Amino acid sequence: MHIAIVGLGLIGGSLLRALTAAGHTVVGYDSDPATRDQASAAGLRVADSVPAALTGTDVAVLAVPLPALPAVLAELTGYPGVVTDVTSVKGPVRDLAPPRFVGGHPMAGKETSGFAATDATLFDGCAWVLCLEPGETALPDWLTLATLFTGLGARVVPLTATEHDRVVAQVSHVPHLSAAALAGRLHDNPPAATLAAGSFRDGTRVAATRAELIAAMCGGNAVAVREELDHLLAELQDLRARLDAPDPVAALIPVLRPAVELRRAWPPAPGTPVEVAADISVLLGLGRTGGWITAVSESGRKVTAIVPRVRETANR
Amino acid sequence: MHIAIVGLGLIGGSLLRALTAAGHTVVGYDSDPATRDQASAAGLRVADSVPAALTGTDVAVLAVPLPALPAVLAELTGYPGVVTDVTSVKGPVRDLAPPRFVGGHPMAGKETSGFAATDATLFDGCAWVLCLEPGETALPDWLTLATLFTGLGARVVPLTATEHDRVVAQVSHVPHLSAAALAGRLHDNPPAATLAAGSFRDGTRVAATRAELIAAMCGGNAVAVREELDHLLAELQDLRARLDAPDPVAALIPVLRPAVELRRAWPPAPGTPVEVAADISVLLGLGRTGGWITAVSESGRKVTAIVPRVRETANR
Repeated sequence: MHIAIVGLGLIGGSLLRALTAAGHTVVGYDSDPATRDQASAAGLRVADSVPAALTGTDVAVLAVPLPALPAVLAELTGYPGVVTDVTSVKGPVRDLAPPRFVGGHPMAGKETSGFAATDATLFDGCAWVLCLEPGETALPDWLTLATLFTGLGARVVPLTATEHDRVVAQVSHVPHLSAAALAGRLHDNPPAATLAAGSFRDGTRVAATRAELIAAMCGGNAVAVREELDHLLAELQDLRARLDAPDPVAALIPVLRPAVELRRAWPPAPGTPVEVAADISVLLGLGRTGGWITAVSESGRKVTAIVPRVRETANR
Repeated sequence: MHIAIVGLGLIGGSLLRALTAAGHTVVGYDSDPATRDQASAAGLRVADSVPAALTGTDVAVLAVPLPALPAVLAELTGYPGVVTDVTSVKGPVRDLAPPRFVGGHPMAGKETSGFAATDATLFDGCAWVLCLEPGETALPDWLTLATLFTGLGARVVPLTATEHDRVVAQVSHVPHLSAAALAGRLHDNPPAATLAAGSFRDGTRVAATRAELIAAMCGGNAVAVREELDHLLAELQDLRARLDAPDPVAALIPVLRPAVELRRAWPPAPGTPVEVAADISVLLGLGRTGGWITAVSESGRKVTAIVPRVRETANR
């Protein structure tokens, strides 16, 4: 396939490398001339403008941050191919979407960023949400992208933008806020920093992320984050009430046990691959039960689906 | 010195090894005959009963879990030496304390437990709280223990039992509860487990601890944990309110920034060692500002103190 990639940071640059290595004809563009030079020097095809990059391509991947997306979309007016993006919040992007748009989110972060950190194997095994909106997404376009990204080893997860945003609020955005809240408590108790060890270190690790980045993630997904934060607050209030019980140890065990079981059963173990129909409701049903696809058939009528199996755990 | 150690699990067994290696005369006892055999087979001195272990010793270290402590203390009636323990909550132990008792808590957990996991170097560099209660603790007894444990490389932190319990609630017990609350949220959203990655993995790691152990830690320190949980709830409520602001990103940044700075400045960097008077109020002042001691002078009149220095960070 002929593919354009706009934005050559960690995700875009890695995608340029990976899709080129997979045998596609791929051309990249970045607004920063130094980044374009780095990509050229790495033997990759680079264009001098967005229109030049798009010329003759079937798919455009917009790998720019959310604030830069409206300007890039303006340059896509009249583009006839499939368009996707890689930003971490999908609701706001859906509101901006051009024709033939399918929102995407590869869960492939790294501590580092920029073209220098790019890696052709970054997407091997990573979960990659591709948004599927009933009555809105063209299934053939969705399958085109699913074919491309499963070809790089990604586990493609079909979800609506709303479902995606709720999940990332739960497993990423709210954990960043709770890490920040725990870390922020150091301010009024100097011996706390001296005695803090493993549970503090891990529970607050992501609080070392740039404040602007945490704020952008959470504030950009404010509705879902607020709802998920309310659930977390309710769980913590329940734990707090149990500390008031006559026997707090006995009162805590029954609520802690399911949480311990869930954590021990994570990450989910993949089940046996099965062939299912490439149908919007079948695909969304798969994504909603925690499944993903690993391939699209040649005909585009079937996909290879994996459903996680329940992992046996013991409360050791 | 002549030292008895009652309980030869991870902490007691490691202490038997470490103090023996440091040249002291140390005898261990464990209620489990198989554990006693393991310790004997490792070339360590082992007694067949608590009284036999205590005979002729200057110091008794009770390295048994909190529920086993009252029964062991009953066997110490009339013991003339210094007594310490290693449990993780100090208020309840203080209520049980025999004469010449100094509560202790080495922050030296490991994933594993039991004599098989023991390690003579376990305490090298670890923070070890030794409780110092004005008007109650005999300073020479406190200094005897501080000499022993700094001799193993431990950083001895002077705090009252109440201060200790507040700190561990903050840096260990509440982080266990927030990890459990985050992990427990997986129950009603199957794709969450599929998309969860680094921030979820680290933020919930300690939720894989045995439910009974988390409940015992938190329930055994219920007053301090409840108070600290209220602080965390207030911080999370504030973050939640900011998500309702007209510009949630701008509203979040000012509260996230100090938390990010605190996490980046952790762990504190040790300052230059200084000699200070071995005086109860000087020692408690040191502990309350996040300091620790690394040695006691021969005369017992001075200690070598380390105060953490402020680490410069940048909000990169």
